[in-house]
Amino acid sequence: MPETIGFIGLGVMGGGMARNVLKAGFELAAVVRRADTAGAFRAAGATICEHPRALAGLAKIVVTCLPDASALRSVVEGPDGLAAGPWTDGLLIDCSTIAPAEARDLAPVLAAVGARIVDAPVSGGAKGAAEGTLTIMTGGESADIERARPVLEAMGRHIHHLGPLGSGQAVKAANQLMVAVNLMGVCEAIALVRAAGVDPRQMREVLSSGAARSGVLEAHALRYLDGALEGGFRAELMNKDLGIACSVGRHSGLAQPATTLAQQMMQALCADGMGGLDSAALGLLYDRLNGAAAGARR
Amino acid sequence: MPETIGFIGLGVMGGGMARNVLKAGFELAAVVRRADTAGAFRAAGATICEHPRALAGLAKIVVTCLPDASALRSVVEGPDGLAAGPWTDGLLIDCSTIAPAEARDLAPVLAAVGARIVDAPVSGGAKGAAEGTLTIMTGGESADIERARPVLEAMGRHIHHLGPLGSGQAVKAANQLMVAVNLMGVCEAIALVRAAGVDPRQMREVLSSGAARSGVLEAHALRYLDGALEGGFRAELMNKDLGIACSVGRHSGLAQPATTLAQQMMQALCADGMGGLDSAALGLLYDRLNGAAAGARR
Repeated sequence: MPETIGFIGLGVMGGGMARNVLKAGFELAAVVRRADTAGAFRAAGATICEHPRALAGLAKIVVTCLPDASALRSVVEGPDGLAAGPWTDGLLIDCSTIAPAEARDLAPVLAAVGARIVDAPVSGGAKGAAEGTLTIMTGGESADIERARPVLEAMGRHIHHLGPLGSGQAVKAANQLMVAVNLMGVCEAIALVRAAGVDPRQMREVLSSGAARSGVLEAHALRYLDGALEGGFRAELMNKDLGIACSVGRHSGLAQPATTLAQQMMQALCADGMGGLDSAALGLLYDRLNGAAAGARR
Repeated sequence: MPETIGFIGLGVMGGGMARNVLKAGFELAAVVRRADTAGAFRAAGATICEHPRALAGLAKIVVTCLPDASALRSVVEGPDGLAAGPWTDGLLIDCSTIAPAEARDLAPVLAAVGARIVDAPVSGGAKGAAEGTLTIMTGGESADIERARPVLEAMGRHIHHLGPLGSGQAVKAANQLMVAVNLMGVCEAIALVRAAGVDPRQMREVLSSGAARSGVLEAHALRYLDGALEGGFRAELMNKDLGIACSVGRHSGLAQPATTLAQQMMQALCADGMGGLDSAALGLLYDRLNGAAAGARR
């Protein structure tokens, strides 16, 4: 009989990941808030549990994919949480993006009930989640990672073990800050050439094979120029992730002028009511800052 | 008999470009300051002229590849400059990196002696210059660009006409600012994962296929991590180029928080005595700012 894997957080990312766990031949048990999602997963053969504590009774391995550390903490430490009773030999695979220290803080809480934790944040977007092609950045004890591996391989294509608990989150934070800092440069480059009367699309094509080439110049720039800002990675999540990168930096005493600036710009974008749009909407904030200068003039 | 092309500025970039003009079958005439360079080009069949005015007497098309606008202005407007006498049907192809407005300012000076100008800054580094594989970003009248094209094609692989005079410089400035802003993010990402105890080389490999992928993460990060900071694109030139990007922004009233920050960081790197190193030496400035935090610790 196949092993039962627990899942909490069947959102844009987690939904696709959980379906791939089912496809890989595992039994799936899940805690689901939305009735329509619960119906769909029940129809696909999943068991729906009332709360995480019940899930821990059915599954030795539970995957979480939650929006932030506060949501994760209630799932673990809440009155009906995973750690509300004994969870002998339990293993939490946390795919949320949280701070490394927040991941480490959960280890003793879980250890007290007999369970362990690995951090496993992902990248690759909703498409990668649906297609099972995510990159998964893991941190934790080698034995725990090996135990998690069959489940991780059901959800992702590239599984990297980067060091002790929290290491996956550190690399995820590095990824997010590089994207956001680069995005500022791309937005400022677009504004500069536009003000000089040059077509930003032509700039993007000319420079996309040289030293300035990047995933952000390819993808984010195009989403901004096309106005295709719905349904991507939301600015409010990027803002949260930059907050994580800044908190790691503060904790370690690092100079982070660019990361801090990116966080401030992303926060301003959210404050301006655009947090629900793709992070490439940062270009719209620059348009607003530049006023008439955003148009074509010298 | 093949046309004679004039060349001024046989440095790291210009030297390779001038050799490719020769290779393409043009006659070459050049103004050369260094005796060894003059000897080498004379041996290769070039005519060495005493000053730009003499060059203008031999060549209807002159290429300049100079470190800054001040050097270019003396070559054009100096007492023995290209515009010191009539230069009927002359065409200046300026491959220096200067501000768009500085390129435009030279147009009336040259027009007064019967000559024209196109801006044609390049990217691709010393290797691209030597191999004739540069990307050349041009601005100017279409007829002038077409006249320049055989010479441009001798020096580069991708020739782009981006708009009126100055447009090439605007796109070059966009390129430089994107590289420098992204470089800050890459340096801060390296510092973050290192402080978390993760190997930055592994971070670089894991993230180089995702949304954070970039030419800077591939090449600059490696040059910093390898300590291979000699002989590349010097920080002092990047600092100058960021000054150009900032001046364009000020002129057009653009918000450039990230570009301005990158210029300040690059300027601090130069002030710290590292202006002669590759711009990837910015990582060393971060190491200094981070002090002991730059080592592996949580």
